[in-house]
Amino acid sequence: MTDTNQEQHYTENVQEHLKQVETLLHKHALLEEVIHRQELPREDRHALVDTLVHKQHIAELRRKLDGLHPADIAYILEALPIEQRLLVWDLVKAERDGEILIEVSEAVRESLIASMNREELSAAAGQLDADEIADLAPDLPQNVMRDVFKSLSIEEREQLRAAMSYAEDSVGALMDFNMIHIRDDVTLEVVTRYLRRFDELPDHTDQIFVVDRNDRFTGVLPLNRIVVNEPEMIVSKVMITDTIQLHPEEKAEQAAQSFERYDLVSAPVVDEEGKLVGRVTVNVVLDFIRTEAESDLLNQAGLREEEDIFASVWKSAQNRWTWLALNLCTAFFASRVIGNFEGTIEKFVALATLMPIVAGIAGNSANQTTTIIIRSLALGQITQDNARRLLMKELAISALNGLVWGGVAGLFAYFLYHSVSLGIVMTSAMLLNLLVGAIVGLAIPLVMQKLGRDPAIGSSVMITAITDSGGFFIFLGLATIFLI
Amino acid sequence: MTDTNQEQHYTENVQEHLKQVETLLHKHALLEEVIHRQELPREDRHALVDTLVHKQHIAELRRKLDGLHPADIAYILEALPIEQRLLVWDLVKAERDGEILIEVSEAVRESLIASMNREELSAAAGQLDADEIADLAPDLPQNVMRDVFKSLSIEEREQLRAAMSYAEDSVGALMDFNMIHIRDDVTLEVVTRYLRRFDELPDHTDQIFVVDRNDRFTGVLPLNRIVVNEPEMIVSKVMITDTIQLHPEEKAEQAAQSFERYDLVSAPVVDEEGKLVGRVTVNVVLDFIRTEAESDLLNQAGLREEEDIFASVWKSAQNRWTWLALNLCTAFFASRVIGNFEGTIEKFVALATLMPIVAGIAGNSANQTTTIIIRSLALGQITQDNARRLLMKELAISALNGLVWGGVAGLFAYFLYHSVSLGIVMTSAMLLNLLVGAIVGLAIPLVMQKLGRDPAIGSSVMITAITDSGGFFIFLGLATIFLI
Repeated sequence: MTDTNQEQHYTENVQEHLKQVETLLHKHALLEEVIHRQELPREDRHALVDTLVHKQHIAELRRKLDGLHPADIAYILEALPIEQRLLVWDLVKAERDGEILIEVSEAVRESLIASMNREELSAAAGQLDADEIADLAPDLPQNVMRDVFKSLSIEEREQLRAAMSYAEDSVGALMDFNMIHIRDDVTLEVVTRYLRRFDELPDHTDQIFVVDRNDRFTGVLPLNRIVVNEPEMIVSKVMITDTIQLHPEEKAEQAAQSFERYDLVSAPVVDEEGKLVGRVTVNVVLDFIRTEAESDLLNQAGLREEEDIFASVWKSAQNRWTWLALNLCTAFFASRVIGNFEGTIEKFVALATLMPIVAGIAGNSANQTTTIIIRSLALGQITQDNARRLLMKELAISALNGLVWGGVAGLFAYFLYHSVSLGIVMTSAMLLNLLVGAIVGLAIPLVMQKLGRDPAIGSSVMITAITDSGGFFIFLGLATIFLI
Repeated sequence: MTDTNQEQHYTENVQEHLKQVETLLHKHALLEEVIHRQELPREDRHALVDTLVHKQHIAELRRKLDGLHPADIAYILEALPIEQRLLVWDLVKAERDGEILIEVSEAVRESLIASMNREELSAAAGQLDADEIADLAPDLPQNVMRDVFKSLSIEEREQLRAAMSYAEDSVGALMDFNMIHIRDDVTLEVVTRYLRRFDELPDHTDQIFVVDRNDRFTGVLPLNRIVVNEPEMIVSKVMITDTIQLHPEEKAEQAAQSFERYDLVSAPVVDEEGKLVGRVTVNVVLDFIRTEAESDLLNQAGLREEEDIFASVWKSAQNRWTWLALNLCTAFFASRVIGNFEGTIEKFVALATLMPIVAGIAGNSANQTTTIIIRSLALGQITQDNARRLLMKELAISALNGLVWGGVAGLFAYFLYHSVSLGIVMTSAMLLNLLVGAIVGLAIPLVMQKLGRDPAIGSSVMITAITDSGGFFIFLGLATIFLI
């Protein structure tokens, strides 16, 4: 967002602002508490809340907020508990609601939207561009979307429809429509005169798109080439034709990788007929990469979605349940595997103390393998050519680990229970289970990828299920054969 | 990197290129194998390798590589096994070595540098800017660095010294020196004339920095303001003074957050005296964010560093050992906790089958808590104000989970072993261990943050250690008291 309002300061340390807002909120809360403590009749209390002091705090807070950049207000809203968040949200100028709703995380956005009525929401959405409205759309009530749609121009309606038609993880979802396009047969001077008619160019305009008379994309004209070259030059002589073109149905991740590889600031989005339909800018790519990285971390811990840290206990618990339920099932299964060897354990109770070691280390090792494989898959580094090679390598590492750490564990078992055969069973079980871990750690993400699913989601539950049950089975099985 | 060489194509699908290179390498390998199979004397074989067909393949490969963008060559090098990687590396034009070394990951860079001699390395480094040399420096032999240093101008030496003096995770390490600066008392026309003297502006020049006569930073002049405004305007009337300023000692992560919040393309870096010392551009920030995200995922699985998927078994194993050794220690400890209850288990062997459930689910739940807390810490959302609140919330969620999933596990135990008291012990142990998990899951990252350590590294080992040992102790302890 271009900073047109000089009052909205950029800030190096947004935490400072958060603290100041918190202090103001405290003064406010303190005052309210004093009033409540006095146990006055309801009306009198309301009168008191309206005192001058109270008004001063609110006014101070409002002033503070007016001076902040929308992204900073979004940051502060995220860091405040629900009641305080809504109090601050009420104090934000209505005409800034839209841009702030775009900035906050989805979880916090829900809480803000829930506090607004139809008119407020329509007004907020009305301040936004078509591509931004499309981002908000899933969270807006239907009647609000109808209001918004009615208020748009025909061109904007077209854009909104287009933006909403693309899958969430496609280039179309990252795209905006704020691109400037020109023809290739004019001089730079004509281009400059055309550009001067704008008060301000759309942000991230590092280049202007060149199209032919049928709106077909033919190349880009970087702003700095306009600046560096003489005004008499013709666009077609200065423009770059060998440039990256994105397509709206492409995976967003692929576009992100292009931005990284080629250090882009903006890139044209072109449909199958070669027509320029929009552009993607680096700020959106940055947000996309950060969000993806966060959701990877969240998924690894089995959190279905981003969690508002101040969400209700009930809501947070639901976010975490699928994962715990799944893990409970695999734990029950592993428990039944052990159950089959109760007779063995009864005779040699040391097995019960040692079995979690066999299961645990193989699980850790398998997760290391999977992490490496998932990363290489994401980078597209795994080809049919090298998959076999990788399997051999992971097996070799596991064999090495099995001998080294299995050996250590075997010695541990021997020194505790003075049984050489127990030590050997321990080492063999570790070695075998580590090999199992290597195979599943490699196979599960590869198979999930083949099936078209995201290998980062759920791999670790399956792997742990197999290394746990497998570990118990191998260890107790070997013990039944060789020790009893 | 600006694409000055029209032969280096941007590409939407770098995997396609990888496949083509692999095919060419195969043809090459096939031919070599045929020659080796013939078991000719050494000299004859060498003669055969030099046949025309062989030369053709190599020439084709070289042509292919010459047409690729350096970032794409880097990508291909990463996806090839060592021997093939070095073969391709040999075919890359020497004058492109420097820019490619900058693009590849650290692990792959090591393997490439190991194959180069002093002259080649000095020549490669000589093609780079001071800030890029600083990035390579840790991997270069000392004598190469001496050569490079000698070949630099005084200004560049100064820059190299400065760039190398900053910590790896500081803004200084992200900074480059390709900024254009002007005075504020000239007209836009003068600025434009000055800019025309460049053949091409440094990439990511979305704005020019304005300094006073003492090189002190006073503001920025966006390129699009030059284009949009009349040439007679004075810089000071058009420039923006309220803008973000980074400082070289600041944390890089903070700068990255500023880029995200304010959608920046470039930002000035200013020292404590207010002097402009460099700039940070969004492409470097993008790389930084991606690398950080990847190292978070790697650290979670206990991989010390990025791993070249084609590294030797020995090297990969070392990368994974610290973590496995650490986990083995905590597993030994947990095993001894169980060992203390051998008498109880002997009397009631069902306990051995059920105890992994208690430990496992609490571990999963605690890791969910930690993931949320680490994320909130990274975003700076946790203040003294809300830490207590978060603890209460996590405890409440764990109590809820304890009752629900502990209840399910209790029923499971009851139906299997027909003992009501076993069911109750199971449910209570789950509940208690989930509460323990909530406390450590919250406390460990907070304490690590307080101690100035990265809470993302090693949290999960500690948490699992506590929920494992704690789970065994609570479950077996309760069983000893109430069942025996």
